Amino acid sequence: MLIVQKYGGTSVGSIERIEAVADRIARTVRAGHQVAVVVSAMGHTTDELVRLAHAIDPDPDGREMDALLSTGEQVSAALVAMALQKRGFGARSLTGWQAGIHTERVHGAARMLNIETKVLREALEQGIIPVITGFQGIAGDDVTTLGRGGSDTTAVAVAAVLKADVCEIYTDVTGVFTTDPRVVPNARKLTEVSYDEMLELANLGAQVLHPRAVENAKQFEVKLVVRSSFTEEEGTYVVETPVGFEKRNVVTGIAFEREVARIALVGVPLQRHGLASVFGTLAERNVNVDVIVQSVVQQAGVDVSFTVKEEDSERAMRILRDLQADLGYRDLVREDGLAKVSIVGAGMISNPGVAAHMFQVLADADIPIKMVSTSEIKVSCIIAAAELERAVKALHEAFIETE
Amino acid sequence: MLIVQKYGGTSVGSIERIEAVADRIARTVRAGHQVAVVVSAMGHTTDELVRLAHAIDPDPDGREMDALLSTGEQVSAALVAMALQKRGFGARSLTGWQAGIHTERVHGAARMLNIETKVLREALEQGIIPVITGFQGIAGDDVTTLGRGGSDTTAVAVAAVLKADVCEIYTDVTGVFTTDPRVVPNARKLTEVSYDEMLELANLGAQVLHPRAVENAKQFEVKLVVRSSFTEEEGTYVVETPVGFEKRNVVTGIAFEREVARIALVGVPLQRHGLASVFGTLAERNVNVDVIVQSVVQQAGVDVSFTVKEEDSERAMRILRDLQADLGYRDLVREDGLAKVSIVGAGMISNPGVAAHMFQVLADADIPIKMVSTSEIKVSCIIAAAELERAVKALHEAFIETE
Repeated sequence: MLIVQKYGGTSVGSIERIEAVADRIARTVRAGHQVAVVVSAMGHTTDELVRLAHAIDPDPDGREMDALLSTGEQVSAALVAMALQKRGFGARSLTGWQAGIHTERVHGAARMLNIETKVLREALEQGIIPVITGFQGIAGDDVTTLGRGGSDTTAVAVAAVLKADVCEIYTDVTGVFTTDPRVVPNARKLTEVSYDEMLELANLGAQVLHPRAVENAKQFEVKLVVRSSFTEEEGTYVVETPVGFEKRNVVTGIAFEREVARIALVGVPLQRHGLASVFGTLAERNVNVDVIVQSVVQQAGVDVSFTVKEEDSERAMRILRDLQADLGYRDLVREDGLAKVSIVGAGMISNPGVAAHMFQVLADADIPIKMVSTSEIKVSCIIAAAELERAVKALHEAFIETE
Repeated sequence: MLIVQKYGGTSVGSIERIEAVADRIARTVRAGHQVAVVVSAMGHTTDELVRLAHAIDPDPDGREMDALLSTGEQVSAALVAMALQKRGFGARSLTGWQAGIHTERVHGAARMLNIETKVLREALEQGIIPVITGFQGIAGDDVTTLGRGGSDTTAVAVAAVLKADVCEIYTDVTGVFTTDPRVVPNARKLTEVSYDEMLELANLGAQVLHPRAVENAKQFEVKLVVRSSFTEEEGTYVVETPVGFEKRNVVTGIAFEREVARIALVGVPLQRHGLASVFGTLAERNVNVDVIVQSVVQQAGVDVSFTVKEEDSERAMRILRDLQADLGYRDLVREDGLAKVSIVGAGMISNPGVAAHMFQVLADADIPIKMVSTSEIKVSCIIAAAELERAVKALHEAFIETE
C-alpha cells in the first residue's frame, strides 16, 4: 500500500516523540508499504513564533509572517528525516517549495492550487521516504501558509495527488469519540464515521481533524484514519459510507463548543435589505458567525439572532453599532456566557423525530434552549454555558448509551 | 551610498535587539543610503538546533542538517523585515534560494558559486530593503549552508555582487582590538587594519570576522567595517592598505588561541612518503591541523610536530595509530594543555628583528617556547596554556604599548 502519514505537533513535540514517530514509519515500511510523511511544527513552536512576531508588530505583514511560521515544520521535517536515516532508511525532508506545493497568493490562509508530484514520486520510486512540511506552500517565489490545521490539509492533498491507499492522521487522541471523554467518561471511540459527520464534529469543536482536510478528503475520496501516535490502538476511519455497527445509531456523536455569545438585532425593518450587508461586513472584519436565526415578529420588522465566539462579541457589537443608521434596527442585544451542544449523525436524515427527542432530553434536564439550528445530519442548541456539561451527559446517555 | 549591513547572532538576539537593528537600518536609509541587510540566526538558535539534531544522531546527514540549520536565519530575517515595515519601510526577507545564492553541492561548508542579483537589484530599485538570510544558499533544490561564520561570507559576497560602497559587519564588539581586552585591559581598538592582518587576527582567534569573509573581501575589494550594533562608536575598517597612524607600529595586534594540543611523530623514515598522507587523512577526517614543524634529527628519519585543537587530539592520535604500519614512525607523542600566541603586523615584512624580539620578550618572562611558526606578517609561538595570559600581556606591552 501507499500510505500518507501525518504527524501533528504533539506527535513530534520532543526528540523522544520524533524517535517514536520514526520507529512507527520504519515499522510501516518494513511491513512492505510505501510511506510519504507530512509533519507539523514541534509542539508549541508555531505559537512561540507568533509571539515573537507580535512582539514586533501586532499586525505583521502576511508574507513575512508566513516566511517566519514556515520554519517550524522545516525543523521537524529535517529531524524526522534524520531519525529515519539513523534507522537505515533513505529519507529526505521537503519544504513546500521543494515538494512543489503551489498555492494561491494569499498569506496566512492560502488554498493549494496543485502539487507537482515529480519530486515525491521519484523519491518513492527510489525507496526514499519523503518527509514533507505540512501547512505551507509557495506562490511564485514567496512562501505561503495554509492557516491553522493546514498540515492535515497538506496530508490529504498529498494523499490525493499520489492516489494513496490511506491517509493516516496521527494526533494525541486515539480517534474520534462519541463526545469529549473529559465530559462524559462513558464516551467511546468510533470505529468509523462519515466525512459529513466528521465535518460536523470537527466544526463543532471536536478539534481532531481540520474541516478543510475533511472536505478535501471527501472531494478527492481519500480514506482517512485518525489515530494516536502514542499507542498501537486502531483509530477511527473517516469514509464516505461507514459500514460498521455504529450505523445502527441514529446519533454518532455529541459535539459542543464553549464561549459562545449571542447577538440579537431586534426590529429590523422588513423593507430594508441590510441583513446581507451585516454578515458581509462581519465576515470582512473576521468575525465568524455561526448559528443564524431569523424570525418575523411583527409587520414592522424581523428579529435576527446569531452567535459568534465570545472573544469576538464586543467587536461584533461595535461593527453593528456603526451600521445602526443603515440597518434601522430598534434594539441591539448581546448575551455572553453561552455554549452550543449538537447531536450529529448521518442516520438523522431518515429519522424525523430526532430533533424533538433532543429538545425533550434538554427539557427533562431543565435546560432552557435559547436558539436552535438544524442541518440534515445535526441539530444544535444554544444553551447557557453553565448547563453545558449536564446537557452533553444527558444527550450522550439518551442517544449513545441507551440506543 | 549602497551599504550592506550584516547583523550577527547577538545583534538580533532578542526582540529588543531586533528593534534596535531596525532603528539603525532606518537611520541609514533616512540618511539617503540604499541598504541591503544580511542576518544571522538569533542568539543561540543554531546551537540549539545542532543540539536537537545530535540528540537524534551524533552524525546527521548533511542535507538534513542544512535544512534544519537554515531555519534559524529565516526566523531572524522575517522578524527584521517586520520591524522595518512597522517603521514604514518597504522590506522583504529573502532566504538563500529566494535571493538566488547558488553554492556547490557540499553540505555544512559549501562555497558560493554565484548570486543572482536580479531579485536584490529589483528590491533596491523599488526602495525595498532586502533582508537576506546569511549562512545559506542552494545547490539545485537542496538547501546548503556555508559553515560557521558563513553570514559574514554572505554579506561580503552580497556586497561584492552589488558593488556596494561598504560592507558593515555588526557584532557585539566595537571593532578589532590590539588584543583581547579581557586579557589586557590596555588593549585599544584599531582604526584600520589590512585584509592580511585581519586574516591572521581572525585565524588566530580574534573571532570577530570569519577568515573566509576577509579573503573574499580582499579578492573582490570590498571595504569592510567591523563595529558594534550596541553603540554608535566608529568601528575598525578592514582595507587593502591602511593609511592611519597604526601603520607606525610594526605589530598591529597580539592574537592567541587556547586549547591547543601538540602531536609529534618521532623517527619517521626518510625514504617513506607517508607524511602527505598523514595530513591528507587528518583533513579528510575533519581534524584541522594548524602549525606544522618538521626537522631532520638523524639520518634515519625526521621528527614532525603539529598542533590541533585539544578536542581533536584524541581522534588525531587514533588516526595516526592506525597509520603506524604505513608511516613506520618510531614513536607517537601527544601533549595537551598548550596555547598559541602570535604577533601580527604588516610592518614585520620590513623588520627582520621582530621574531627575535618576540622570543626575547618571552624568554625575559621565563616562558618556554615549544614550537615556532612564522609567516610574512606574523610570528606564532606554542607555549603552555598556563603561561598564555602572561605572554599576551608581556607582548602587548613590548610591541603595542611601548612602541
